[in-house]
Amino acid sequence: MNYQFSARLGTFSSSAVREILKLTQRKSIISFAGGLPAEEHFPVAAIGEAFQRVLAAGNKALQYGLTEGYLPLRESICGWMARKGVTVTPDDMLLTTGSQQAIDLLTRIYIDPGDVILVERPTYLSALQVFRSYGATLISVDTDNDGMDLDDLAAKLKQYRPKMIYVIPTFSNPTGKAWSLERRKGVLKLCRESDTLILEDDPYGELKFGDASVTYPSIFSLDEHPNGSCVVYTSTFSKTVAPALRTGWVMADPEIIRHMARAKQAADLHSSSLDQQTLYQLMEHFDLDGHIEFVRKEYESRMRQMADLLREQQWPGVVWNEPKGGMFFWLELPESVDTADLLKTAVDLGVAFVPGISFFADEDAKKNTMRLNFTHNDLEGTVNGMKRLNQAMESVLVK
Amino acid sequence: MNYQFSARLGTFSSSAVREILKLTQRKSIISFAGGLPAEEHFPVAAIGEAFQRVLAAGNKALQYGLTEGYLPLRESICGWMARKGVTVTPDDMLLTTGSQQAIDLLTRIYIDPGDVILVERPTYLSALQVFRSYGATLISVDTDNDGMDLDDLAAKLKQYRPKMIYVIPTFSNPTGKAWSLERRKGVLKLCRESDTLILEDDPYGELKFGDASVTYPSIFSLDEHPNGSCVVYTSTFSKTVAPALRTGWVMADPEIIRHMARAKQAADLHSSSLDQQTLYQLMEHFDLDGHIEFVRKEYESRMRQMADLLREQQWPGVVWNEPKGGMFFWLELPESVDTADLLKTAVDLGVAFVPGISFFADEDAKKNTMRLNFTHNDLEGTVNGMKRLNQAMESVLVK
Repeated sequence: MNYQFSARLGTFSSSAVREILKLTQRKSIISFAGGLPAEEHFPVAAIGEAFQRVLAAGNKALQYGLTEGYLPLRESICGWMARKGVTVTPDDMLLTTGSQQAIDLLTRIYIDPGDVILVERPTYLSALQVFRSYGATLISVDTDNDGMDLDDLAAKLKQYRPKMIYVIPTFSNPTGKAWSLERRKGVLKLCRESDTLILEDDPYGELKFGDASVTYPSIFSLDEHPNGSCVVYTSTFSKTVAPALRTGWVMADPEIIRHMARAKQAADLHSSSLDQQTLYQLMEHFDLDGHIEFVRKEYESRMRQMADLLREQQWPGVVWNEPKGGMFFWLELPESVDTADLLKTAVDLGVAFVPGISFFADEDAKKNTMRLNFTHNDLEGTVNGMKRLNQAMESVLVK
Repeated sequence: MNYQFSARLGTFSSSAVREILKLTQRKSIISFAGGLPAEEHFPVAAIGEAFQRVLAAGNKALQYGLTEGYLPLRESICGWMARKGVTVTPDDMLLTTGSQQAIDLLTRIYIDPGDVILVERPTYLSALQVFRSYGATLISVDTDNDGMDLDDLAAKLKQYRPKMIYVIPTFSNPTGKAWSLERRKGVLKLCRESDTLILEDDPYGELKFGDASVTYPSIFSLDEHPNGSCVVYTSTFSKTVAPALRTGWVMADPEIIRHMARAKQAADLHSSSLDQQTLYQLMEHFDLDGHIEFVRKEYESRMRQMADLLREQQWPGVVWNEPKGGMFFWLELPESVDTADLLKTAVDLGVAFVPGISFFADEDAKKNTMRLNFTHNDLEGTVNGMKRLNQAMESVLVK
C-alpha cells in the first residue's frame, strides 16, 4: 500500500552513533565510537543476587507496576541524592527507561513546534534528535572551558525567548568539560529571571577525575529544590551499574513530574519493574558507592592511558584537553579535515570514532572534530586502536 | 518559576484504570478494574533460571543493546509466529516496552495533528490516550458481536478519509468479543482499497476459550505479509509470561519498522535488554506453549466462575455476553445508571471496576457500562467482590 508517514518523520534521522554501533558489532573493529562502559566492570554477581532476592520476595514482583516507578527504588535514590545535597521525595521523581526517556518525556509535555531550545555548542546528539522531533528550533550558545558564555546566553535569552535550555554541565558529552561554579550560578540566575526551564542532564557526574577535593554541585542542587525549581535534573544507572537495566530517573517540581508521568503512561505504561526492583535490592545489599569509586578509578586510569597515547602521536594541528571526568576525549583537527570522510578510512583500517558534526545543533558545525571514547577498551585495545587511528590520520595530516 | 507547558499537555488526562490501580493498592479493595494477569501463575522459577543463564553467558549481557531489540529473541518470536501462519524475519520486527509503546511509536511516525483514526466503539482506553496526544481526530465505527460493521466502516472511510484504523479483533478490550473471519477479511479489503493503515492490537489472542477447533487468524496473517502489508501487528508477553518484563513486539513492512526504530532511538535508545535476553532463554528452555495452555485453561475456568456468579445476581436490565477469550466481561446497565457514580459507591463498599465511559472515543459514550476483569482474583476473591458489587448495584437497580 501507499504509506502516508507523518511530517515528523523527517526529523528522526538515525543517529550516527547508533548506526556505527551496528557496524562495530563486527569483531574486527576497535571502536572508540559508542559511549559504552567497560563490560568487565559490571557487577554481574551482585546483580544476579539482587535478582534472586526480587524473585524470592514473591510472584507479585512480576505484576504490573506504577507508571512513576518502583517506590522503594525511588526512596533509595532520594536517600542517595540527599548525600549530594539534594532534598527530594519520591513524589518529585519519575523512573524512566534510561535518562534518554526523561529527555523525551519532558520535551513532549513542554515544547510546542517552533519553541526555541538553547543548547551548548557542541552537545549530546541524541538530545538534539529528540528536540528536533518535537519541532523545536535549536540555537547554540557559545561555550568555553568553564561552561556557557554568560554574555552570549543573556543575549540569546533576550533575542529568542527560549522555553528551555539543555545542558550537561558536569563532564559534557562530547567534550568532557566541567562548568565552573560561577557559570552554574550565572546560568541559573539568568534562567530564573527569564522563566526559562533548565534541563540538566547528568549521566556522568559520578565519574570525576583529578583532585578529589574539587566538587561540582549540580545546578539543581543550587536552586530551590524541588518546589518551584526551574531545573529538571536527570541521571541514570547506565554508567555506574549497567546499561542493560535501562533505568534512569528525573527529579523536578512535582507538577512537572505529574505531567511527565501522564505522558509516560501513554508512552509505555511503565518501564521494566523487574530491573527497578533488581536495582533496589542492589542498592540495599551491595556497596554501590564502593563500586562506583572502583569504576571511577579504572576510568581515570584509562583516560590517562589514552591521553599518553594521544600525546605520543604528535599529530600536527590536532588540539584536545584532558577530560575532567566522564567518558570522552574531544579532538579538534585542522580545518581542512572533514572527519566524516576520515571515518570511512578509519573503519577500513579497523577503528571507529564519532565525527563531531553530529554534536552541533545548527549549521555552524565544526566538521573537523571527533569524539573518542576511552572507557570501553582495555589497554591493549586502546593501543591497537590508536595505531589504526594514526594510520587514518596520516592520510589527512601533513607531519 | 512560571511553567509554560506544551499545548499537547491537555491531552494527557490520567487514565481512569491507572488511577484506580493506585487506589486499589489498598489491600481492603477487591479489584475487578485493572487488566491484571493472575500472579500465582507467573513462571517465577523458570524466569529465575532464564536470568541465571543470561548472566552466565558473560558480562556483555549487561551492555547497551540494539534499538531494534535482542536479535535472538526476535528470531525466536519469528519461529513462534510462523506456527501461527505469519512469515516474518527479524527485520520486520521491533521489540518494544510492552505493546503500549508500539502504539505510541507508530502514531508518532504516522499521524499528524488533525489526521483521522477510526476505532471500535468501545475500545482500549490507553490507545485513545496516545492517539489524542498526537492530535488525531477519533471517529468510532459501529461494532456488533461479529466485529466492525462493514457498511458503517465503508461510509466512514469515504467520509473521513482516515489515515489509520485501530482494532482489537481477537478478544477485545473491553468487550471480550472475537471478530468473524468474514469481518476480518472485509475490513482488510476496505482498508487496502483505501490505503488505510490497520493497527491490529493482539495482546489477548492466546487466551481463547470454548471450542478448540475454532481459530481466529490475525488480520496481519490474512494480508500479504510483511512486505507492502497494510497491517501493523503488535502483541506482548505481558499476558502470557509476566508484565514486569515489559516486552512487546510489533511486526510490519520493514519500511515502517525502520522508521519506528528511529523514533524509538530518540524515545529511549532501547528497552531493557536484560528482560529481552531473559525471555529468549525462557523460550529456548521452557515449555512456553504448555505454560500458555495452562494459563488459558485457568482463565477460562475463572471466566466461567464469574459468569455463574453474574447469572446468580439476576440484576434487572443488566446485559452481558460470555467473552470468547481475553480478560474481561462487559456489562451494560439500564440507561439511567451512570457507572462513574456507581464506582464511588462500589469503592466505599470495597470493590472496584472500570466505568465504561473511558473506552469510548467520542461523545456518543454509554455511561451505563462497565468492564470487569476476571483473571486476577481467585475464586474466593471473585465471590466476595461480587457480593460487594451486588450491594453497590442494589443502590441503583430496582429489583
